[in-house]
Amino acid sequence: MTADDRFGCNRLATLPGPLRLDGGVLLSPVEIAYETYGTLAADGGNAILVCHALTGDQHVASAHPRTGKPGWWTRLIGPGKPIDPARDFVICTNVIGSCMGSSGPASVNPATGRPWGMRFPVITIRDMVRAQAMLLDHLGVARLKAVVGGSMGGMQALSWAATFPDRVAAAVVIASTARHSAQNIAFHEVGRQAIMADPKWNGGDYYGGEPPAAGLAVARMAAHITYLSEAGLTEKFGRRLQAREAKSFGFDADFQVESYLRHQGLSFVDRFDANSYLYITRALDYFDLAEEHGGLLANAFRGGTTRFCLVSFDTDWLYPTLESRNIVQALNAAGAPVSFVELTSPYGHDAFLLDAPEMNRVVDGFLRGGR
Amino acid sequence: MTADDRFGCNRLATLPGPLRLDGGVLLSPVEIAYETYGTLAADGGNAILVCHALTGDQHVASAHPRTGKPGWWTRLIGPGKPIDPARDFVICTNVIGSCMGSSGPASVNPATGRPWGMRFPVITIRDMVRAQAMLLDHLGVARLKAVVGGSMGGMQALSWAATFPDRVAAAVVIASTARHSAQNIAFHEVGRQAIMADPKWNGGDYYGGEPPAAGLAVARMAAHITYLSEAGLTEKFGRRLQAREAKSFGFDADFQVESYLRHQGLSFVDRFDANSYLYITRALDYFDLAEEHGGLLANAFRGGTTRFCLVSFDTDWLYPTLESRNIVQALNAAGAPVSFVELTSPYGHDAFLLDAPEMNRVVDGFLRGGR
Repeated sequence: MTADDRFGCNRLATLPGPLRLDGGVLLSPVEIAYETYGTLAADGGNAILVCHALTGDQHVASAHPRTGKPGWWTRLIGPGKPIDPARDFVICTNVIGSCMGSSGPASVNPATGRPWGMRFPVITIRDMVRAQAMLLDHLGVARLKAVVGGSMGGMQALSWAATFPDRVAAAVVIASTARHSAQNIAFHEVGRQAIMADPKWNGGDYYGGEPPAAGLAVARMAAHITYLSEAGLTEKFGRRLQAREAKSFGFDADFQVESYLRHQGLSFVDRFDANSYLYITRALDYFDLAEEHGGLLANAFRGGTTRFCLVSFDTDWLYPTLESRNIVQALNAAGAPVSFVELTSPYGHDAFLLDAPEMNRVVDGFLRGGR
Repeated sequence: MTADDRFGCNRLATLPGPLRLDGGVLLSPVEIAYETYGTLAADGGNAILVCHALTGDQHVASAHPRTGKPGWWTRLIGPGKPIDPARDFVICTNVIGSCMGSSGPASVNPATGRPWGMRFPVITIRDMVRAQAMLLDHLGVARLKAVVGGSMGGMQALSWAATFPDRVAAAVVIASTARHSAQNIAFHEVGRQAIMADPKWNGGDYYGGEPPAAGLAVARMAAHITYLSEAGLTEKFGRRLQAREAKSFGFDADFQVESYLRHQGLSFVDRFDANSYLYITRALDYFDLAEEHGGLLANAFRGGTTRFCLVSFDTDWLYPTLESRNIVQALNAAGAPVSFVELTSPYGHDAFLLDAPEMNRVVDGFLRGGR
């Protein structure tokens, strides 16, 4: 085991493919940027795939190479944590459609030698999962001890169990859903329209010039509100003013919550590609696991051998507990083993990324239970 | 009573003022566009002021002169309705800051002969109410039988009772709040940033040229989601596709909810001024009736003679029932008579504008009770 293996390194696999996408297009080559932590056991039985959310990346348990920020799920993954590279071989891939090295709209279209832009094919959550399966083949991982994810990562975990039931021993699905609701789609559509309304978007052809930063910032601001709870926002900001004694009677960011949101929007545009935001939100809106299985969610899980663990948070209004319950009912109908818990948190949807010792205990117990 | 009096006509009062605004500026003249229905009784005891919401107008019970659409609250106001012009003298004013004829950023600044744009002073809900009081003076209405409003109209009703306690016999406050929450402010800030991100906004100087339609449409789309309930959106649209057999695997409006939202955004820009949207959302975000009264909401109502009726809707997540309860508690603490009911509706915040027979019965009973 090298130092690189121990702490993760930024890897890129260029797989010939082709990958047949749900939209009918054949994608080739398929580039997948990923990180691994730990070592694959001789019997191959210790591989855990961790799946990231909309704007996440492969740097799940090690510092981001550009920003230097710690991995986004070091609370769950690391020495002495429920997922421990000393024991587990941890893999995290940047999803296709994204912009952290995997094939996406910012990648070069081999047919033209120029960035794909909006000529990149529309992808689905299942396409992301199929690309991950190609990478696992490449890495020699036949079967996963577990696939683990929150939010869009949870959708990938569900899709893994449905698409490759023989390759997944356990799935951990946190703060997620089996289908995007009308309200989910509506918020994403606002974000897409904000990006497309920015003249700098230019039909997606902005690479080499200025990106549609203003539109992307607005999209992020709108989405960010849905990641927090109303009570959490009140607790964190309430109606407190910025470093001012009184209201300005102007249009500066008087309230702390305004300043916070503007910062969220502005910092996002430095780390994310606007076209990728369009493609991944589209994949999320298209996600409906029941629809892919004849309209009945239980059909997605029949005959599988996967054990499931679902976790929801009581203040999550993006993917409320009810969505997890619907999945649990379908799993029960399919005769699949499932444990489910709703945790209390003031933090809304974002809770799964924050300090959540109860979540850690649940995941730890579930992963140990399978041995 | 002329035909004009019977059906309402578009009136404009140009009052010399000056109106001292909460921000310290003196506004002069003060233009107020308004409608009236019915006739003021000899004893002046039948005047009811109806207050509109963020994007509303003075055409509450008669067709909009430009669009021809029926008045926005004909379900509550009209022959045989709880507010009946055959009995009541109904007044509805376009709030200052708006764009339907009252002084606002699109009005001509008398000092320059050009539209105010962003040089228009920032206003508050209380400023709107003070302007209305000036109009009532002008019309010879000393005291209101009732002030009635939903959403921002309800805030005006509360502010009326707090600012002019001797001029309001009764206040009806529907689907409203005594202060904007952090989440409320956050959503409005997204809308403002969307407008200001549109290059056509041009610092507010776009009159005579093209307005920032794309930015305003995005602002409206984001806000519109907050007016509907999650369950209502699911019931109305779910994941149903537009007139297509299958997903397009593109970025057209595949889902009905996308198409609906786009339409909401596009149709809004034909009827509303982007700068007015900035000013009125600012007024809403500044609204905190407790803060205006030493930090204790009950202080706003002490010593008054106003009777109150509060109505909330169980699926309203913009101004949830809890906000109405807080007002009721403050009114109780102040010893003010108040009746309160939470109604069931699938329609979220918008319920107060839709068919709500229970709401009509509550308002009817309350207004009759005062006689």
